[in-house]
Amino acid sequence: MYDFLKGQETYEVIERDDGHVQAFPASSYFSDYRKWSARHKTAMKYVRGRVLDIGCGAGRHSLYLQRRGFDVLGIDISPCAIKTCKLRGLKRARVMPLAQAGPRLGVFDTLLMLGINFGLFGTPAKARRLLRKLYHMTSNDARIIAETRDPYKTKDPAHLAYHRHNRRRGRLAGRVRIRVRYKSYATPWFDFLQVSKIELRKILAGTGWTVGRVINHSSPIYVAVIEKES
Amino acid sequence: MYDFLKGQETYEVIERDDGHVQAFPASSYFSDYRKWSARHKTAMKYVRGRVLDIGCGAGRHSLYLQRRGFDVLGIDISPCAIKTCKLRGLKRARVMPLAQAGPRLGVFDTLLMLGINFGLFGTPAKARRLLRKLYHMTSNDARIIAETRDPYKTKDPAHLAYHRHNRRRGRLAGRVRIRVRYKSYATPWFDFLQVSKIELRKILAGTGWTVGRVINHSSPIYVAVIEKES
Repeated sequence: MYDFLKGQETYEVIERDDGHVQAFPASSYFSDYRKWSARHKTAMKYVRGRVLDIGCGAGRHSLYLQRRGFDVLGIDISPCAIKTCKLRGLKRARVMPLAQAGPRLGVFDTLLMLGINFGLFGTPAKARRLLRKLYHMTSNDARIIAETRDPYKTKDPAHLAYHRHNRRRGRLAGRVRIRVRYKSYATPWFDFLQVSKIELRKILAGTGWTVGRVINHSSPIYVAVIEKES
Repeated sequence: MYDFLKGQETYEVIERDDGHVQAFPASSYFSDYRKWSARHKTAMKYVRGRVLDIGCGAGRHSLYLQRRGFDVLGIDISPCAIKTCKLRGLKRARVMPLAQAGPRLGVFDTLLMLGINFGLFGTPAKARRLLRKLYHMTSNDARIIAETRDPYKTKDPAHLAYHRHNRRRGRLAGRVRIRVRYKSYATPWFDFLQVSKIELRKILAGTGWTVGRVINHSSPIYVAVIEKES
């Protein structure tokens, strides 16, 4: 990301623990509003109040919202991502994994998890634990605007084989163990969770959160606007 | 490549044996003449007679030359690459690694190794062995139009560390061991050779071949027009 900011076109590689690889251009972290998907544009309409952008990357959503007058804090596990956000003008950005976000950050009205960052919850059990914690860091009418990919909407034999492997171990099909590689850098391996709408509802049950509107433009990827149960 | 032809933007990942990764968009295999580097455009001026395009990929150079009336045979180790070439209209294309190219393919006037395909020679010893064989598959005034990257023109600490590792083992700095990964596919590991102009001249010595013009537009990557010694 930081290299891209410095003028190089670069690609990040996502490696799954079965050897499947996929690369993404870093430029996508920098795209501005006009180039966003209709899904992300619609998602912005649900943002209100104080915003926590979880896994903010190069800050594309945070910067947009800051320009529109929102009070935004971007957090990301990557120091280079946060450096990039600050160089691009984001006022509040901190190196912090989701698991360490706590009440000392203040009370938020919107939690943003776009860029399929619902996956950062890792596993259903961790998701529930973190959702309960996030419940207490947010106002009564707070929203989590979370993006994920419905893992069942694929015909790729490599993905389908991975689903079977997961099911044999009693895991949700869309739970993947991945690491991100770039040049000589590699993150540790981590769990990344992708869920169908039904699975999402099951995970939320008992956490105080519930699915409101779902933003879906006929893509396997969708955004759920998650609200507090009344 | 084939997936790209089918409409998906895809990226190929090059993994080096020290864990360094780099991704490239498959679209670059398809770029047409207008979008080529000045180096490749100039290289085309040195093509004559019957052409063997070694590691032809999706056929961007072969198809250009075929349209210009040249008799071109494209070879590539990848069946999907050859399938892609044929679908795109290349008349003569065969699945074949460089090491298996022999006199039964006929006599060539131009051997094309663009896309830094000089690297396919693998090691200096293999390069010399193959150059001697290619000498006997070519006409008296034949040319090898070969592209490589001067490995010394880098400041990347990861590359410089790899050079030191190579030198400690008595190897040329620019000899890398890599594999290509895409989705769940991975090629076997193979040697890929990148040489400076001085190293290139040393490798050619005694093979019957010599460096003629060098096409270099201030990039670390250059094209050598290699000719038979008179």
